[in-house]
Amino acid sequence: MAIITLTTDFGEKDYFAGAVKGAIYSELPEVKIVDISHSISPFNIPEAAYIIRNAYSSFPKGTIHIIGIDSELNPENKHIAVKLDDHYFICANNGIMSMICQEIAPEKIVEINIHDKIESSFPVLDVFVKVACHVARGGTLEVIGKVINHIKPIINIIPQVNYDNTQIIGNVIYIDNYGNVVSNIKQKFFTEVQKGRGYTIHARNHKFNIIYKKYSDIVNFEIPEERRQDEGRGLVVFNASRYLEIAIFKSNGNTVGSASTLMGLKPMDTVTVNFID
Amino acid sequence: MAIITLTTDFGEKDYFAGAVKGAIYSELPEVKIVDISHSISPFNIPEAAYIIRNAYSSFPKGTIHIIGIDSELNPENKHIAVKLDDHYFICANNGIMSMICQEIAPEKIVEINIHDKIESSFPVLDVFVKVACHVARGGTLEVIGKVINHIKPIINIIPQVNYDNTQIIGNVIYIDNYGNVVSNIKQKFFTEVQKGRGYTIHARNHKFNIIYKKYSDIVNFEIPEERRQDEGRGLVVFNASRYLEIAIFKSNGNTVGSASTLMGLKPMDTVTVNFID
Amino acid sequence: MAIITLTTDFGEKDYFAGAVKGAIYSELPEVKIVDISHSISPFNIPEAAYIIRNAYSSFPKGTIHIIGIDSELNPENKHIAVKLDDHYFICANNGIMSMICQEIAPEKIVEINIHDKIESSFPVLDVFVKVACHVARGGTLEVIGKVINHIKPIINIIPQVNYDNTQIIGNVIYIDNYGNVVSNIKQKFFTEVQKGRGYTIHARNHKFNIIYKKYSDIVNFEIPEERRQDEGRGLVVFNASRYLEIAIFKSNGNTVGSASTLMGLKPMDTVTVNFID
Repeated sequence: MAIITLTTDFGEKDYFAGAVKGAIYSELPEVKIVDISHSISPFNIPEAAYIIRNAYSSFPKGTIHIIGIDSELNPENKHIAVKLDDHYFICANNGIMSMICQEIAPEKIVEINIHDKIESSFPVLDVFVKVACHVARGGTLEVIGKVINHIKPIINIIPQVNYDNTQIIGNVIYIDNYGNVVSNIKQKFFTEVQKGRGYTIHARNHKFNIIYKKYSDIVNFEIPEERRQDEGRGLVVFNASRYLEIAIFKSNGNTVGSASTLMGLKPMDTVTVNFID
Repeated sequence: MAIITLTTDFGEKDYFAGAVKGAIYSELPEVKIVDISHSISPFNIPEAAYIIRNAYSSFPKGTIHIIGIDSELNPENKHIAVKLDDHYFICANNGIMSMICQEIAPEKIVEINIHDKIESSFPVLDVFVKVACHVARGGTLEVIGKVINHIKPIINIIPQVNYDNTQIIGNVIYIDNYGNVVSNIKQKFFTEVQKGRGYTIHARNHKFNIIYKKYSDIVNFEIPEERRQDEGRGLVVFNASRYLEIAIFKSNGNTVGSASTLMGLKPMDTVTVNFID
Repeated sequence: MAIITLTTDFGEKDYFAGAVKGAIYSELPEVKIVDISHSISPFNIPEAAYIIRNAYSSFPKGTIHIIGIDSELNPENKHIAVKLDDHYFICANNGIMSMICQEIAPEKIVEINIHDKIESSFPVLDVFVKVACHVARGGTLEVIGKVINHIKPIINIIPQVNYDNTQIIGNVIYIDNYGNVVSNIKQKFFTEVQKGRGYTIHARNHKFNIIYKKYSDIVNFEIPEERRQDEGRGLVVFNASRYLEIAIFKSNGNTVGSASTLMGLKPMDTVTVNFID
């Protein structure tokens, strides 16, 4: 039996996520439901796009992903179901899918049209659950929607390169639980533009010359532990999802501080890479 | 096999919820456990009542709901198990069940009396789990308690109507994850008192003349998107649970603000509806 | 089929926990995954040790516990798998297991050595999941690591007794969801040192002479409810895990305040017990 995942901005407190799970089990007692996150910032589409893009591919092929962000149906916000990379995604056509679709071409996109039978002020519960259970039972997307070819884009997910290829201009797209600052500059893209050159990375007034492979590479283990002062130092890594990330070693927003708080970096801020011949 | 849900004020960090799930699986390896919420404000009974009332009915008949709020056994706080609407609820007799029981008559209420065998400082783990597993195995309530006829009420769950039916005086009962402000005025009750008259809704110094069907009804889609200024505007809707709610369109407490923060509204504040002939 | 639990500092928002669950279900569709906590404070090893120690034993024998705190592999932070009390624990050798191992001798400890095949910046996903699934399938620890005899200790988990046995000097090890302050003084240890003597408990400038059996024992139920003033009063109990805890009756950090906020107590602060002949 299939897995249905949930990614929403419902928060940890409200009854919404609980009600959605109850509705799914009422239709399909044997399905597995997995929470990816209910703590997306309210209406924050780039954040949701980053999280679902990095979580989905760990799940088995055939998994169905419900994304409940800004999902109220209106003339400019239709509901879609997407088949891509042998996974299914059910969400509003508000830009959430554009980060994944930019990297992997979708096999099929339908605009959901079962709404004439469902008048709802809670579309995740009343519409997305029905679509997810339909797919979990082996139903095709054409039965619940009409095929479309384009989805709504979101801005700032692709970094820019200047005219003579000496600079990448990227943006902060996500601040993680450790306060680390994730840019939209992927390792593959960086390497293609770099062509072996040296580089400096700039974010506000901070400057870095090394990209580490992992966080603790900043530590010199030949110095005795009691004389080291690495906790709280800034560094750059390609993170577990292969995005360029500005981090603080063993950061903690409540104690030593985090990259976001210490360096004053927030979503949409510019991160620049200058290449040196 | 039955579903057991958990609604508590244990928070997301502590070991309490994990231990309870471990204990349930130790007794019943095949049961499904669903978290409704562990983020109820500590000891906040009206909040728990609102959440369980709106979540439970999405689950299949026969589901068993453990509610772990203010559950320490003492002479004034007994444990009860309630069968209602073909669902089972296990909680302290502290008012949590009164919101549901006011709308649907319980089939059976028992005061749990297996405590002489269990001395506990963690009754959800030691008592509620045992009762839930007993019910999940098909056991009857009479085996674990003695039948009673009344439960403890909570105040302020019912709005008042003035002597000449020109005014409803309600209260804020819940602030949701989006900072939206939920009153205790249900759509059905509103319509019965309204009898087709016009109305104004007052909360502190804020005034509204329209109740929308959904949040985005505030948007005039004929105005081009770049010229609209709807985000952050206040509005009133009947929410997904059919309660009158004061909301901010696309609210976010950390950016544009929320109804609660912008209008200074908090639980127990008065929400008034004045009808106009 | 076995249960795999997760205890991490990933937080509620990030994709990390979701990705880990997806990876487990991809390997073992029939396993049960239970979240113990993802809200450990970042890199807070004593907190993680307290939570896993109190949660694990409610689970059935054979359960596999993944602990994802400070788990990046480096020369001083190896990965281990421990069999203890018929449970399995997979974590970094950073002190997390020392609280449990101090009370119950481990049956077997191995240092995981499958890393030459796995280069990873997300070891919980890439290494711990593989080890957990190996164990869930009935595999032995020797296959994935080499047996070792010692693990790294953490400090301040054991309270001290002065030279003439008149004083226990303990520390705050945890602040729970209610703001209650948990010390490292266990009831059994207290009773052994006490030998029936009277006592006073000191924390900062606060002093207590009674240890209650449960929180509501502070209430005198003979006084009518409307005249009582117990909410917000400080008290000491042995908590559900049998640790000496300084609490506030019906505390709530956002309203009446909590023991931590009202008394200014935080992790590592001293809690002293003076015995009186």
